Amino acid sequence: MAEIRRDLVKNNWVAVAPDMALKPHDFPIKRRGIDPYGNNIFCPFCEGHESSTPPEIIACRENCSAANAPGWSIRVVPNKFSVFQLEGVLAKTQAGIYSNFNGIGRQEVIIETPEHGVDLHDYGPEKISQVLKILKLRYNDLSTDERIKYIQIYKNRGIFAGASLEHSHSQIMGVPFVPRCNSGVVDYYNKNKQCLLCSIIEQEKKFNIRLIHESEHFLLICPYASRFSYETWIIPKQHGEQFGAISEAQISDLAAVCRNFMQMMIVTLRNPAYNFVINTAPVNLPYQPGFHWYMEITPRLLVTTGVDISTGIYMNPVAPELAAALFRKEMTKFI
Amino acid sequence: MAEIRRDLVKNNWVAVAPDMALKPHDFPIKRRGIDPYGNNIFCPFCEGHESSTPPEIIACRENCSAANAPGWSIRVVPNKFSVFQLEGVLAKTQAGIYSNFNGIGRQEVIIETPEHGVDLHDYGPEKISQVLKILKLRYNDLSTDERIKYIQIYKNRGIFAGASLEHSHSQIMGVPFVPRCNSGVVDYYNKNKQCLLCSIIEQEKKFNIRLIHESEHFLLICPYASRFSYETWIIPKQHGEQFGAISEAQISDLAAVCRNFMQMMIVTLRNPAYNFVINTAPVNLPYQPGFHWYMEITPRLLVTTGVDISTGIYMNPVAPELAAALFRKEMTKFI
Repeated sequence: MAEIRRDLVKNNWVAVAPDMALKPHDFPIKRRGIDPYGNNIFCPFCEGHESSTPPEIIACRENCSAANAPGWSIRVVPNKFSVFQLEGVLAKTQAGIYSNFNGIGRQEVIIETPEHGVDLHDYGPEKISQVLKILKLRYNDLSTDERIKYIQIYKNRGIFAGASLEHSHSQIMGVPFVPRCNSGVVDYYNKNKQCLLCSIIEQEKKFNIRLIHESEHFLLICPYASRFSYETWIIPKQHGEQFGAISEAQISDLAAVCRNFMQMMIVTLRNPAYNFVINTAPVNLPYQPGFHWYMEITPRLLVTTGVDISTGIYMNPVAPELAAALFRKEMTKFI
Repeated sequence: MAEIRRDLVKNNWVAVAPDMALKPHDFPIKRRGIDPYGNNIFCPFCEGHESSTPPEIIACRENCSAANAPGWSIRVVPNKFSVFQLEGVLAKTQAGIYSNFNGIGRQEVIIETPEHGVDLHDYGPEKISQVLKILKLRYNDLSTDERIKYIQIYKNRGIFAGASLEHSHSQIMGVPFVPRCNSGVVDYYNKNKQCLLCSIIEQEKKFNIRLIHESEHFLLICPYASRFSYETWIIPKQHGEQFGAISEAQISDLAAVCRNFMQMMIVTLRNPAYNFVINTAPVNLPYQPGFHWYMEITPRLLVTTGVDISTGIYMNPVAPELAAALFRKEMTKFI
């Protein structure tokens, strides 16, 4: 079973499977030089290739087709290469100064479409709503496992965003601990007795220099400390801690906003690789105020360098105020 | 002037120039699709193109050639695109909930060779010694500026390691604060009253499963919590806090070890992109025990994904024990 190893220098965690060694030539970016996807590569996510994935957890099958057979529009399967598994008991191991705990957890893949080469943003808002509903469903299902303490939703699109397959998909991961990565929101709450994201909404409306768009339920901004050039956050205006509690009205609005934004971004940034992630509150832990779920969209126009790796300081060559000005202008063409 | 902005969610820092907006088509990976270097691109680091860089700070000119003219073997220039500058007084600005301090600091480029397309590891140990001596010189010079509190040396090689130019070079950066990134070494010292890197040396010799090689002055290991596949650390066996205090004997040994290791790694991992960074103690601050300088070499076979970005957890598909076993075996062919 995988180990979640403590990095004593960085005060962080690394997931490693002790018996796993991907060979140099098996890495996506080495497999075919810098064109890892290539053509004519067998795609396990395509319709008709259902047996190439682990058995499905759930699928949208409008015509009541059989599980793990063609006839689906969205399909959720366990991540075949996940280092996490749900069997077993959470345990910590110490070896000298080193420590790890075992990889109890879950990684699932949401195959967003049977069609290879069509991106999620190419579909209409109805389709995007369906994907969001499935994400909500899986989020709430994972949270029923008491061992899982944090759930991360994310999407990698393109080789420079870390996607190992081209076929449009997103992922959901449940882990047995809360990453320290977003701990600033708790620090901020403890210091100010206010939600950081609610404060950000208030500030951005007041400053009015990093706003991209406002819909009924969401505010789109380029954040003040954008790590990535043209980084964009989609923040629900109503304070809500758990993504799993997203309402029907929010889903409809988010689907429309996402589609318009993504189509604008793809054109404006000339088809960039990108990630999106949904940050949310921990689950199965005593209530801790300060969390407010939101979506981060990070175009990947730059590769992290030795500076980012060593110091953690991101160098961003695009001021978020200028990124927002460009996006604000372009966004009007897509609404 | 640039701003070092506080990221309130991540408790981190982002360097942004408020008037800078690299256009989408100007990013290296967009400029020419995924072949950003291409052929026939004008290279500002080549001999004869000295006027394309800011005036040199220092250069190795064996035949007493004129500054900023051909006839050099190593050349150090300010980074033309640095967000940092040395003019001015360190100042903090608050705007609502946001804060930043101005970009007092320095980034310099060490152009390691006048020859385009030749990598540092292609040269003999004598050349690598020279580069290390120049790095030491620049380190000690930057540390005479009281405003600089931390100096990071790093190298980006290849597009997947964030290099924007192909011509072999490394960089040195002085910043007016200590990044929190490696704060684990101080936490470890405060808890155990021992140096973490010295403890790691002791543990790795005892466990003997992650050792790659031992020379007179250095230990090469794959670290227990390797963030990157085939990540390797070169640790001086003698406790030393400042890279700037590296001895002549250590430089000679490090040059030989680096050359052998790099040549082995390039062959074994099939010419990967990589970074190296040198982590060291802060400067111009009251003495804080716990630091021990060392070098990290990180092959970049994977691109950071939405998981890394959002949770900070690195997913490494190669167990460091298996990486070390492979490198240990291959290394014997290169010594």
